[in-house]
Amino acid sequence: MVDIATRVWNHKWKIDPIVRSLIDTDFYKLLMCQSVFRNQRNTRVQFSLINRSSDIRLAELIDEGELREQLDHIRSLSLTRGESTWLRGNMFYGKRQMFRSDFMEWFEQLRLPDYQLEKRDGQYELTFEGSWPEVMLWEIPALSVLMELRSRAVLKDMGRFELQVLYARGMTKLWEKIERLRQVDGLRIADFGTRRRHSFLWQDWCVQAMTEGLGNAFVGTSNCLIAKNRDLEAIGTNAHELPMVYAALAEDDSALRQSPYKVLADWQEEHDGNLRIILPDTYGSEGFLQHAPDWLAGWTGIRIDSGDPATGAETAINWWKSRGEDPTQKMVIFSDGLDVEKIEKLHNQFAGRVRPSFGWGTLLTNDFRGLTPNDALSPFSLVCKAVAADGHPTVKLSDNPNKAMGPADEIERYKRVFDIGQQQAMDVVV
Amino acid sequence: MVDIATRVWNHKWKIDPIVRSLIDTDFYKLLMCQSVFRNQRNTRVQFSLINRSSDIRLAELIDEGELREQLDHIRSLSLTRGESTWLRGNMFYGKRQMFRSDFMEWFEQLRLPDYQLEKRDGQYELTFEGSWPEVMLWEIPALSVLMELRSRAVLKDMGRFELQVLYARGMTKLWEKIERLRQVDGLRIADFGTRRRHSFLWQDWCVQAMTEGLGNAFVGTSNCLIAKNRDLEAIGTNAHELPMVYAALAEDDSALRQSPYKVLADWQEEHDGNLRIILPDTYGSEGFLQHAPDWLAGWTGIRIDSGDPATGAETAINWWKSRGEDPTQKMVIFSDGLDVEKIEKLHNQFAGRVRPSFGWGTLLTNDFRGLTPNDALSPFSLVCKAVAADGHPTVKLSDNPNKAMGPADEIERYKRVFDIGQQQAMDVVV
Repeated sequence: MVDIATRVWNHKWKIDPIVRSLIDTDFYKLLMCQSVFRNQRNTRVQFSLINRSSDIRLAELIDEGELREQLDHIRSLSLTRGESTWLRGNMFYGKRQMFRSDFMEWFEQLRLPDYQLEKRDGQYELTFEGSWPEVMLWEIPALSVLMELRSRAVLKDMGRFELQVLYARGMTKLWEKIERLRQVDGLRIADFGTRRRHSFLWQDWCVQAMTEGLGNAFVGTSNCLIAKNRDLEAIGTNAHELPMVYAALAEDDSALRQSPYKVLADWQEEHDGNLRIILPDTYGSEGFLQHAPDWLAGWTGIRIDSGDPATGAETAINWWKSRGEDPTQKMVIFSDGLDVEKIEKLHNQFAGRVRPSFGWGTLLTNDFRGLTPNDALSPFSLVCKAVAADGHPTVKLSDNPNKAMGPADEIERYKRVFDIGQQQAMDVVV
Repeated sequence: MVDIATRVWNHKWKIDPIVRSLIDTDFYKLLMCQSVFRNQRNTRVQFSLINRSSDIRLAELIDEGELREQLDHIRSLSLTRGESTWLRGNMFYGKRQMFRSDFMEWFEQLRLPDYQLEKRDGQYELTFEGSWPEVMLWEIPALSVLMELRSRAVLKDMGRFELQVLYARGMTKLWEKIERLRQVDGLRIADFGTRRRHSFLWQDWCVQAMTEGLGNAFVGTSNCLIAKNRDLEAIGTNAHELPMVYAALAEDDSALRQSPYKVLADWQEEHDGNLRIILPDTYGSEGFLQHAPDWLAGWTGIRIDSGDPATGAETAINWWKSRGEDPTQKMVIFSDGLDVEKIEKLHNQFAGRVRPSFGWGTLLTNDFRGLTPNDALSPFSLVCKAVAADGHPTVKLSDNPNKAMGPADEIERYKRVFDIGQQQAMDVVV
């Protein structure tokens, strides 16, 4: 039987919206947003899209009108009653009422601010300006819209069965990864793939497959909407944008040097347990740990998001030991460019020595490599970052010079202030 | 939106029927049935199920109650008005009114006769007895019911995503075959996979994938229901049961020797063009061709269904030449145990020398090899054959001694009458 109502309903949509909810975003965005709302509400920021894979000429692949329609649709969204109820009432990281009333009241009224869009050299220049807690919420939906429009551009000329086989291949590919991960004893892994997913429906499928295939080893997803719909844990802590903006706001070199610790001091006031995860690499992990105050060594764990991950973990282990902490009780979350082989290797290397955990992103939710002619669906490195705060440019160094961003003179200043020596350059794939 | 009506409707079915139509069968069955209805209507026959893969213990895998329900459901079927209209009005092999009114009136009234079912040594003994035109229509549905119940037995313990990935893998596997076949210039290929399909829905998918993937190189399907629903050509001519029953009815050795030609003389009265396809191997192809009357050399082509296919085609080419016929105008249909590699090889060897064509069966519609633990979904060699006619046992020799069937003393008599020498034994996989 044809469900006529569904069919008519589907055809009533002017567009097929990619982002249909304000909580189709990463959980850490909401945690950070609340923190920013409390501590830095009036800071003005600018976020910009940066396509690090310049060979993917997005402005030639994606129609500007379609992109505007998708972005405009996101601006029409507001938090639904059910979403608000879930955020207010759900238990996150073992705690109820993670989101305070004043933040929720603000969030319920929120519409995302305007955007500026231009084409240049085959790329889109997409920027967002305004108050930090509003603008920051653009990052994830902007990325997932561009990623999915690029997927659609590639898919639009394929036949019906060709499409079905493409997804069949994608599913098989992921399932084979899951079957390998099932062999990893004591694995803890979460989905971190919202921002560079192939599509929303595909991420939703990947998450469900992980749930069935890995059972308790799959600890949850960073995507709030999927966590809510599929009754999973929402996972995430904090990201580089906090130290980047705090650093840009620093009045002098001394304040700059302290800014990454100020971020975590503010964070510590609000969060405990598994939410106390250090992200050390914004301006070089080694120097960050070396100069860190003692209270930071008591935090639950660390997230390794750039540089050689094994080296990063060893650095953390040595640091904890030097501060009288027991590394075997510490969580180490690997989240940079993971795929099965790297996960297996890191797990085998560190299980028992620390509590390893994995935030699996792009190659979980967007691994169509090898499945189309010319690899037209391969993932690529698109980011959307804070580039300025109250008129000052931001800088990120990370543990990989290929991931550094900011004006050249500011990068030099930061390198000096944070005493960055030689860094090992590594390819940035995703 | 949930379509409540569909959901309630689906749950009203006591069983999930495998065969839902009397035309969910091979087209040649209906052609032969009409011929038998005209020429041998009162012959009494017995058909029996034979599982040549005795390691697949069907009676342990398949519940007897479920099997009876499926067979009983088939007995409840009759030709629908739309099916009758299609058979009466559709153009088959370029001809309208292929099925005459007297046959259609009989078919419209038909219900399939009763069956006898027993378990022995882990296998089902399933037999059908009655008038030939009625009993013969059991062959294909009986086989497809047993094949699909075996699939269901294996699938029933699998998880939802595990199942989806299984089919994803099956689809990928078939699509890779289609992509290879697309490279074969001038290919002509049809689906012959009804009897040993994984399931009805799977065959339907395979046929649609072939349609999209191969375009005009895919000439049609043997399955009438799918041909009707998908607006494709119904493909097929005649099979071994005709010479087997005619031979069993022969009064003496001389009549036996002539019986295979009598079949084709009756056939020639009814059919022309691409329906005049010789099936020479029932009692040895070489002797059959050597002693064939000259009018048979004028037929359109030959079907190679046992023995080494290249040898069979060479034998046919030499025979046509010896009878003054031009082999390049003749069709050679390969239909025995095909898969992509064999198809490519035979096509390359014979294109230009004859008009090669392929009837692709089990490894089109049931290739789940390597996709489940212990290969529990591998296809196997199940047949349902005429074993007696008017009280006389039937015999089949074919060009492969491993495919011979019938009582040992009768096999010896047939070998003597048809002057069969050494035969090359070949494995029977499917």
